[in-house]
Amino acid sequence: MKYLYPSLLGTFVFDNQFQVVDKILFSSLHDYGKKEELTRKLQQRHPGVRDLPAEKLASALTALKAKSYYQAFYQQNLALTKKKIKASVTEDQLLIQAIANINELDKTSNLMIKRLREWYGLYYPELAERVHDNEKFAELVLGRSREQLMKESQERQEKGVSEKESLGKTMGADLDKHHVQEMLMLAQEVRHLYHLRHQHEQYLEKVMEKYCPNLLELAGNTIGAKLLELAKGLKKLALLPASTIQLLGAEKALFRHITSGARSPKYGILYQHPLVQKAKASERGKAARMLADKLSLCARLDYFKGEFKAKEYRKELEGKVQNE
Amino acid sequence: MKYLYPSLLGTFVFDNQFQVVDKILFSSLHDYGKKEELTRKLQQRHPGVRDLPAEKLASALTALKAKSYYQAFYQQNLALTKKKIKASVTEDQLLIQAIANINELDKTSNLMIKRLREWYGLYYPELAERVHDNEKFAELVLGRSREQLMKESQERQEKGVSEKESLGKTMGADLDKHHVQEMLMLAQEVRHLYHLRHQHEQYLEKVMEKYCPNLLELAGNTIGAKLLELAKGLKKLALLPASTIQLLGAEKALFRHITSGARSPKYGILYQHPLVQKAKASERGKAARMLADKLSLCARLDYFKGEFKAKEYRKELEGKVQNE
Repeated sequence: MKYLYPSLLGTFVFDNQFQVVDKILFSSLHDYGKKEELTRKLQQRHPGVRDLPAEKLASALTALKAKSYYQAFYQQNLALTKKKIKASVTEDQLLIQAIANINELDKTSNLMIKRLREWYGLYYPELAERVHDNEKFAELVLGRSREQLMKESQERQEKGVSEKESLGKTMGADLDKHHVQEMLMLAQEVRHLYHLRHQHEQYLEKVMEKYCPNLLELAGNTIGAKLLELAKGLKKLALLPASTIQLLGAEKALFRHITSGARSPKYGILYQHPLVQKAKASERGKAARMLADKLSLCARLDYFKGEFKAKEYRKELEGKVQNE
Repeated sequence: MKYLYPSLLGTFVFDNQFQVVDKILFSSLHDYGKKEELTRKLQQRHPGVRDLPAEKLASALTALKAKSYYQAFYQQNLALTKKKIKASVTEDQLLIQAIANINELDKTSNLMIKRLREWYGLYYPELAERVHDNEKFAELVLGRSREQLMKESQERQEKGVSEKESLGKTMGADLDKHHVQEMLMLAQEVRHLYHLRHQHEQYLEKVMEKYCPNLLELAGNTIGAKLLELAKGLKKLALLPASTIQLLGAEKALFRHITSGARSPKYGILYQHPLVQKAKASERGKAARMLADKLSLCARLDYFKGEFKAKEYRKELEGKVQNE
């Protein structure tokens, strides 16, 4: 009686005493994929060979514990694991990193623009009061000197645009250049952060176009990315029921509902979607439910490499929501 | 009976009925400094004029409520306030902004390097494990391709430096260039942040050299700046008792001591000072106390523009601490 045992290292043929009578070893991990083929070869060489029954496995493995095999097993196993780890990096993970980084960049740039407003405020406090947009503020600080800024503000005033500021004067201190220099460097940093954020957004959109075109089309760039983040990847999103997708981002309200009997939430992050926004207040819950239905389909189409149907879905939804 | 009333607008002479009989108005804020002189001039013109007694002030002010004066008062007051605000920006505030920004940069760069390690870890996980220094990590990621990094690691291994990594292989995924590009952009950002931090530190030192040379000499760049931050400026630091300076940065422990009777703290931020570090553990409290004494003197010398004595203080302290 001979037994056939295909393993990570190659295929072995044991005799009754569990001595190795024949074997074909894989020369590399690549051969591992051709396991079946090698096994068939050995079956032809040893007619009547049987597959190793489960209860004999321990004996076979003991025989393979011999030093020569053991080390090889270890190496092969390591290589296989590494290969699997290598292959386990999916677009999901890349997307999640990019999304997480965008969120952190937002936090960071907010912190730094706040500091810039305060710091630059020692030099030209009127600007922070006049310009509320953060990105524009950094650009103005960088692009022009205080004197230019004051002159522009003066011209605008003379044209009749009312501003509280008195003409061409500032309450800010007249600081030496090397003090202002530090503020400008911070502004430069803030500009970089905004730039990086835009860059990441474009990247996100590009990757999503290929990886989950349906989700991107129906949910849009921002909400689509948030959904992926909340579900922790496209695979998990595709496996979620639509009712869960409807409430992604509303976890807090949902648990409040469960524990203290408050009203159940009707939408989470989907609240920001134009289709929900456009609906009448009383119909928003319904709109969110219908949207979540279609988004769930989109995620599944994308994950299982289905066709592109999101445009139809969108039209369908638009028709329904507007009719209500 | 005539009254003399010097005001923000100029000096007025009133008669008994509180009609203005004479006045010299300031032509600009600059004249306001020459108030005394103008007042004297009017006294010469109207011999026997008396200073306005306090109880008559209300009547005088009512007389000045006339439209012509009122508007001028308002303008002058505004200008004066602005001038005062302008003059109120001291090195203190600039230093505090720079220090606060350094702290925020630390927080930010930590957040971002953590993200970079995780993200780049999808591509080349072995690097994050091997390189623990954050700044070096960013530099390596930026300076070399993964292939170069792997080759270097291999060479080091062949020279006998033991590394866990298997030769020239990585568990990281082989990603397209546009994925790696995003990571590199983040690394670039991290490098910028470190650069900005160094820049701010140099600035801090330069400003402190001029503004508080004694404090800088004895406390050093970092601790000096922290003391200024904790005390909220040199003026306040100069007015603090030495015992408070000794405990700056130990507020939590101090209040624990007060409320729950735990042992009182012996030092706050001063614990990091080389003089305290050098002392025997049992003598550190004493060293911190002596150091705080001298630092308090330094802050006062600096604030009141005294001489440069910090070097002497340092020698004195070094002698005492080493003797113990």
